[in-house]
Amino acid sequence: MKKTLLFPLLACGMIVYGQNGDPRLTEVWEPEPRVVTPGATDKDAPSDAIVLFNGKDLAEWESMDGKPAKWTVENGVVTVAKGTGAIKTKKAFGDCQLHIEWRTPAVVKGEGQGRGNSGIFLMGLYELQVLDSYNNRTYSNGQAASIYKQIPPLVNASRKPGEWQTYDIIFIAPRFNKDGSLKSQARITVFHNGVLVQNNMAIWGATQFIGIATNKAHGEKEPLVLQDHGDPVSFRNIWIRELE
Amino acid sequence: MKKTLLFPLLACGMIVYGQNGDPRLTEVWEPEPRVVTPGATDKDAPSDAIVLFNGKDLAEWESMDGKPAKWTVENGVVTVAKGTGAIKTKKAFGDCQLHIEWRTPAVVKGEGQGRGNSGIFLMGLYELQVLDSYNNRTYSNGQAASIYKQIPPLVNASRKPGEWQTYDIIFIAPRFNKDGSLKSQARITVFHNGVLVQNNMAIWGATQFIGIATNKAHGEKEPLVLQDHGDPVSFRNIWIRELE
Amino acid sequence: MKKTLLFPLLACGMIVYGQNGDPRLTEVWEPEPRVVTPGATDKDAPSDAIVLFNGKDLAEWESMDGKPAKWTVENGVVTVAKGTGAIKTKKAFGDCQLHIEWRTPAVVKGEGQGRGNSGIFLMGLYELQVLDSYNNRTYSNGQAASIYKQIPPLVNASRKPGEWQTYDIIFIAPRFNKDGSLKSQARITVFHNGVLVQNNMAIWGATQFIGIATNKAHGEKEPLVLQDHGDPVSFRNIWIRELE
Amino acid sequence: MKKTLLFPLLACGMIVYGQNGDPRLTEVWEPEPRVVTPGATDKDAPSDAIVLFNGKDLAEWESMDGKPAKWTVENGVVTVAKGTGAIKTKKAFGDCQLHIEWRTPAVVKGEGQGRGNSGIFLMGLYELQVLDSYNNRTYSNGQAASIYKQIPPLVNASRKPGEWQTYDIIFIAPRFNKDGSLKSQARITVFHNGVLVQNNMAIWGATQFIGIATNKAHGEKEPLVLQDHGDPVSFRNIWIRELE
Repeated sequence: MKKTLLFPLLACGMIVYGQNGDPRLTEVWEPEPRVVTPGATDKDAPSDAIVLFNGKDLAEWESMDGKPAKWTVENGVVTVAKGTGAIKTKKAFGDCQLHIEWRTPAVVKGEGQGRGNSGIFLMGLYELQVLDSYNNRTYSNGQAASIYKQIPPLVNASRKPGEWQTYDIIFIAPRFNKDGSLKSQARITVFHNGVLVQNNMAIWGATQFIGIATNKAHGEKEPLVLQDHGDPVSFRNIWIRELE
Repeated sequence: MKKTLLFPLLACGMIVYGQNGDPRLTEVWEPEPRVVTPGATDKDAPSDAIVLFNGKDLAEWESMDGKPAKWTVENGVVTVAKGTGAIKTKKAFGDCQLHIEWRTPAVVKGEGQGRGNSGIFLMGLYELQVLDSYNNRTYSNGQAASIYKQIPPLVNASRKPGEWQTYDIIFIAPRFNKDGSLKSQARITVFHNGVLVQNNMAIWGATQFIGIATNKAHGEKEPLVLQDHGDPVSFRNIWIRELE
Repeated sequence: MKKTLLFPLLACGMIVYGQNGDPRLTEVWEPEPRVVTPGATDKDAPSDAIVLFNGKDLAEWESMDGKPAKWTVENGVVTVAKGTGAIKTKKAFGDCQLHIEWRTPAVVKGEGQGRGNSGIFLMGLYELQVLDSYNNRTYSNGQAASIYKQIPPLVNASRKPGEWQTYDIIFIAPRFNKDGSLKSQARITVFHNGVLVQNNMAIWGATQFIGIATNKAHGEKEPLVLQDHGDPVSFRNIWIRELE
Repeated sequence: MKKTLLFPLLACGMIVYGQNGDPRLTEVWEPEPRVVTPGATDKDAPSDAIVLFNGKDLAEWESMDGKPAKWTVENGVVTVAKGTGAIKTKKAFGDCQLHIEWRTPAVVKGEGQGRGNSGIFLMGLYELQVLDSYNNRTYSNGQAASIYKQIPPLVNASRKPGEWQTYDIIFIAPRFNKDGSLKSQARITVFHNGVLVQNNMAIWGATQFIGIATNKAHGEKEPLVLQDHGDPVSFRNIWIRELE
């Protein structure tokens, strides 16, 4: 640190300041945070968000094979069309804030993993489970708001089937070293219907149905994927803010 | 690990399993996440929250000297009564999820730090700034959603004066060692009107107006404090969920 | 923050200070860090460490059933006595800095997991693998310095069989909520022979040989365990500093 | 997850497996951690390190103005040549593991910040203090192993003046967003003479002698700087491993 200390204040200012000092020394003016206009309500997309589903069409989505997405859009809602397969965003994303609303069928059918099952795959690899977990016991690390087959939610904050539910997600992508090894784990924070259910948890690796989570190097950005698990789960009001 | 490995499956199951295996091996059933009923909307208090302000009275609050809180409660809203001083919760909190709504006066008066200024002191020590930061330049680390005199918000997501604004906060308290040294820094995540503005940032220490943030050992739980900065800032719908 | 700002310095001091100010405002004098006398070399136990093995006896250890530990102590070294089972510390530990030195047999025998295998179980649950990984391919998440069946080391920094190797470990225990759910994951940093091999990685859960890592609530402190995997692996110079 | 579950094992394997299962399902073989040959001792440079000072010359260093570094090299040691200014590496670094040894003069002279003062500036911005802190009280956030004017060390693990001391450092650079705001804070872990003194602490910002730490966007890699504070502090055995 600078060696030559001058204490001119001792001669005058310190008398007035006493134990205080100049409060302006701890003000930081630059850079000025850029302005983002929040949505009309907190659920609505802020001005810097990319709206992934606007209620009208699947312009931002495609099938896994790159062909047009075949899910059903009706009344401002997109619903899994059984057997048409997962859909993915045309754009790719890394670190992000993601808002998504989903609804499992009001008419309950099946149980456990067989009831209102879908999934949100961050980067197409890390699944945040979507499931009707209202009075529907399954394995804890497979219920709604779990990181599938890895981390159960802190609590079960599910709404009833047929009601709209929300996920507000902060996702930090994993980083890989040049040699392909894992540098830092992905991290996730999730609010389910306004309730904190994943608190900055480290994701183990890419979701696997069988066996262990894996960590193979991948891109800094990858498309977001919504799963077709055969149940007519619906989604609406999907927007994402890139953190970069 | 266990030395004696038996691979009986080689005799039969593996033929069928191929590269798969038993998916049940990665199911975890216990413990079962406890049920929390979310609020009617995501802004409303979930079933396990402590409602700190219900719109009717200041039963959960007191003045800094332990006497009854003197702020004004009217029409479901509590407003700073200038000169009555800060108020603090009767209960103490550590790690928590906090929802709080606030509003600066519709009639703009003053500028910079002099416009619609208040503050939320987590544990009475770590200030998340409340300020009318709509078209009101001040130092970046002193505007709304900053950790005062420390960390500017990622973006300025302010609503107009007179409009209700929200903070959704995840706060992890600092930990101290037995000898009084700082073991781990406090961490904070904040959404301002639904927009991520503090992303798991480490707080430097207790907020200081003049000089450096300090880190003196304190309790695991401390009361939440709302600041009287002389401006008639209002609050409503305050609830907290202890993370413990 | 304080409302009444006085800037007497503008009258005198600021002229002298210019863009500077009083450097003493950012000095923190209390608390004073306590003095720890480092070891004679960096490998030796500092003054506040608990020496778990002093080269003479197993006074700090016992068998898993609480009976006297049966491993062999000779020439300042303790060696796994095949078939006598794991040993654990009499004291329990949570967050800690751990130094431990180990050696696999100079005469190589077996391969993969069958060569120079032992393990260090933090809290008796989280295994840092000990294995002869010098020119001995096994699964990446099972080689020396891996968090067994979870996280491979960043690099393979193994010394040759018969040579002494070191682990310098920072371990932060997991935290559990009152309801038994996992609050925060355990974290680990490891240097293997002076090379960073685990960089603040989140441990998935308790080590499992078969199936998935588990997270059942346990004490804040649990004994450290060394594994008897049937190979005559040796240890020496084991010391631990509690971080608390 | 895959919808069609086959449980052929129920027919045979499960009888044998019981509660177990196939341990191979949790083996991960790829990628294989690359081999790094550790140094002859843990203090010596591993095979993938960049040796910044080899005891012979300052080939890896230059003055702040880009001219040849003027510090004194003698007997395998480099010593601050008072008044010649700081020196910086020709190469730039971001995330890294850094080993560095330093020695303050055996003949004690001056006190507080005036005794054996130098500093290691990661990225040229974040100072890990070098000071003779053996029986030499100064402000806690200015003593050896402090992040200068920010974070005191956990303990004072200083050796006596005239003795060689070591820092083993893990440094994670801060990240900035495209708009210049701070995305994630720098983090640091430091062992001083083998004793943990900084445990994954978030650095507030660039070191300032006067006033507050600042966070202006800078490159992903920046040169390492050693400070000339006027005292003949010596260094030796400096090596760095890039974490990337």
